[in-house]
Amino acid sequence: MKLNEIAEIVGLECKSDIEITALNSLLDATNSELTFLENKKYIDDLKNTNAAAVLVTLENSKEVPSSTIAIICEEPYLYLAKISKLFAPNIIELDGEKPVVGGGTKVMPNVYIGKNSKIGSDCTIMAGAFIGDNVTIGNNTVIYPNVSIYRDCKIGNDCIIHAGTVIGSDGFGFANTKDGKYIKIYQNGNVIIGSDVEIGANCTIDRAVFKSTIIEDGVRIDNLVHIAHNCKISKGCILVTQVGISGSTTLHPYVVMGGQSAAAGHLEIAPFTTIAARGGVTKSITEPKKSWAGFPLFEHRQWLKLQGKISNLLK
Amino acid sequence: MKLNEIAEIVGLECKSDIEITALNSLLDATNSELTFLENKKYIDDLKNTNAAAVLVTLENSKEVPSSTIAIICEEPYLYLAKISKLFAPNIIELDGEKPVVGGGTKVMPNVYIGKNSKIGSDCTIMAGAFIGDNVTIGNNTVIYPNVSIYRDCKIGNDCIIHAGTVIGSDGFGFANTKDGKYIKIYQNGNVIIGSDVEIGANCTIDRAVFKSTIIEDGVRIDNLVHIAHNCKISKGCILVTQVGISGSTTLHPYVVMGGQSAAAGHLEIAPFTTIAARGGVTKSITEPKKSWAGFPLFEHRQWLKLQGKISNLLK
Amino acid sequence: MKLNEIAEIVGLECKSDIEITALNSLLDATNSELTFLENKKYIDDLKNTNAAAVLVTLENSKEVPSSTIAIICEEPYLYLAKISKLFAPNIIELDGEKPVVGGGTKVMPNVYIGKNSKIGSDCTIMAGAFIGDNVTIGNNTVIYPNVSIYRDCKIGNDCIIHAGTVIGSDGFGFANTKDGKYIKIYQNGNVIIGSDVEIGANCTIDRAVFKSTIIEDGVRIDNLVHIAHNCKISKGCILVTQVGISGSTTLHPYVVMGGQSAAAGHLEIAPFTTIAARGGVTKSITEPKKSWAGFPLFEHRQWLKLQGKISNLLK
Repeated sequence: MKLNEIAEIVGLECKSDIEITALNSLLDATNSELTFLENKKYIDDLKNTNAAAVLVTLENSKEVPSSTIAIICEEPYLYLAKISKLFAPNIIELDGEKPVVGGGTKVMPNVYIGKNSKIGSDCTIMAGAFIGDNVTIGNNTVIYPNVSIYRDCKIGNDCIIHAGTVIGSDGFGFANTKDGKYIKIYQNGNVIIGSDVEIGANCTIDRAVFKSTIIEDGVRIDNLVHIAHNCKISKGCILVTQVGISGSTTLHPYVVMGGQSAAAGHLEIAPFTTIAARGGVTKSITEPKKSWAGFPLFEHRQWLKLQGKISNLLK
Repeated sequence: MKLNEIAEIVGLECKSDIEITALNSLLDATNSELTFLENKKYIDDLKNTNAAAVLVTLENSKEVPSSTIAIICEEPYLYLAKISKLFAPNIIELDGEKPVVGGGTKVMPNVYIGKNSKIGSDCTIMAGAFIGDNVTIGNNTVIYPNVSIYRDCKIGNDCIIHAGTVIGSDGFGFANTKDGKYIKIYQNGNVIIGSDVEIGANCTIDRAVFKSTIIEDGVRIDNLVHIAHNCKISKGCILVTQVGISGSTTLHPYVVMGGQSAAAGHLEIAPFTTIAARGGVTKSITEPKKSWAGFPLFEHRQWLKLQGKISNLLK
Repeated sequence: MKLNEIAEIVGLECKSDIEITALNSLLDATNSELTFLENKKYIDDLKNTNAAAVLVTLENSKEVPSSTIAIICEEPYLYLAKISKLFAPNIIELDGEKPVVGGGTKVMPNVYIGKNSKIGSDCTIMAGAFIGDNVTIGNNTVIYPNVSIYRDCKIGNDCIIHAGTVIGSDGFGFANTKDGKYIKIYQNGNVIIGSDVEIGANCTIDRAVFKSTIIEDGVRIDNLVHIAHNCKISKGCILVTQVGISGSTTLHPYVVMGGQSAAAGHLEIAPFTTIAARGGVTKSITEPKKSWAGFPLFEHRQWLKLQGKISNLLK
């Protein structure tokens, strides 16, 4: 879609007719992609963007690199939201090839498999599973009943996805208008799940707003776990029941999160970190191999000591 | 159903043959409805009821208005439970019209749409969705795969309901017998969802015991959120992942509840209140536009200050 | 399967050709079953086992009773994991009888019922429900839409299972290899649910690793509750929304767990215990009829007093 056409649709001005292929973040955008800057905190990323064009306020526009077109507007995030809809794929693909299912794969009744989807060999796809358009699933993977896999998601080999789990639902994103409306940020990315991953029942793993939410090889996820858009759950991580991970947070390899623990958004959690049950992570953890507990979070030994001190208040 | 017939079925005495059309709460009951008083806390509501009849203990019966018939019994709530079954609609409607689906609406395979249901135009109803009897859905609404919408619920225009979400499941209600049994309070109400509402994946929104659980226009709900029976989530509210709202609680407009936060039942939360992640609301919040955190709940700044004081205990 | 064949497949040595019928825990294993000891904490159980054979380290092997064959290995739990796969039933049964459905039972469209399954009379099985192989359901039970019941589970009479709930998904179990892989412990048990049980929407109840996860008569479970493998939820227990119960924990009769409360694994909670909302149980509770709150857990009155003391820190 041409940049000037995009601008016109949402009521902005831009003369360039460069072809825009997608929306993306400041640092990931390529020279055919459109990006935005709303939060001044990311001004350094703006200076380093390779994007074709950027939605930006007049104030911040002086930091736009010379190779990037500045589209000046008062509310860049709101315009991003409006434009995101233009790049949203169809909910159901109208055209495309029939799905391809590998040898030895069993597909039970009442399963839907979308267009252009490819399922490997020796898989089991159980009754009531929904596999959207353009999904790929590797070999020897089991999809239990009533699992929903949204379009464009990718799942590796030797995975087990338990019943009722939803993969690729929209991330929770919207911009506010001045009169109190929320404008959806269409979540045009996907979810990529590696190999040898087991995901419990009734989990939710949201698709990325741009690019991919990633679950790497060997991850183990218990039931009723929520993983928000653009998270990266690195290899060997273990997430126990009812954990919630907010958007754009990265768990480095072999992080263990206990039951009902949680992490805020845009954090990094160092390798081999252990978060005890109910722990709430609100800042990045940079030192690997430590154990943490509580909310606010303390090193586990400190937390235990603190609980002793607190209970002394009763004396 | 005639009042004396109802009474006879459950082993109570009443001579009036007035026609009872429904059960309802003390203040909402009309002069064709039956209500109850168990908890003396609501005695003022009894004095002001317009109900046709009330299940009430002998002790409280002197406060029954002259226009209301008192049906005296020892355990009014238990009798309400027994009577609620008499007013429960069929789980599956036996008779009724074929569903009506508007122009431009796509209905995928493996979808069930019940009798007397009406779906507007330009909707997408994805595979595995269940839409019960007597459901109405507006225009341009998307129902993702494996969503279950129980009978009698209403959904507006421009809504998005993500996969696996359940709308209209029974509220959690029962009366105890003296020998340790629980008698179900049939949840004969419904859920009404306004327009421009987005609900995440694997949420649960319970139907009302009487009347309606209400989600107003513009509400945004993340994944794995629970909303109990008879709640009202007013326009513009935002509920982040894994929030739980107990029964009969009202969120006034533009309340924001962070991830894993919760509210107890029968509360009011003032407009533009913000509850931080993990916050637990146990009392009504009457002053608007304030931020709160913690469990027990404090004003957010106080909570932060308190956490500082608590961590000083380690020194 | 013969013990020497099992040993050979996983690379261990054993000469006995005794027939092994199943895996089981130390105390439950019969003289045709294979068990294991990894954690020295259970050494007394080893002394009392009636198992046919036990996977055990050299160090612990001296405590193996004379009637039990010791299979010596360095990592008994890891070998258990490898062997568990040999005893896993087929995901989908290849042979077997057509399901039997009792008189008066309504089965809606898009329902799958597996081989050898038996559904009693006067049940309602709603659209999109999945009922696996070898499942039995009693009389007058309602299975709401998109419920998934895995193979081998048993459900009694007069139960109500709300939409999206998953019964019999695999418990969360795996052994670690030295090079950072997780080897699945196949969960070869099942779930047994008594009569007059109501389970809310989008709950997850995992099947046992050996034997059964048990939900006894009269239990009431709200929405989005998680019950892990090998739990026993005794008669009359009430679990409010978003509760999580970890593996092998027993709730004795009439325990009430408030919303978002939780219990760690391998605990016993005494009869008529009440856990307030958000309470976190990490040790067994032996005294019945007490109320508890908080995390760490205190008696409810003490917790309230402690919160007063804590808030005094702000003065």
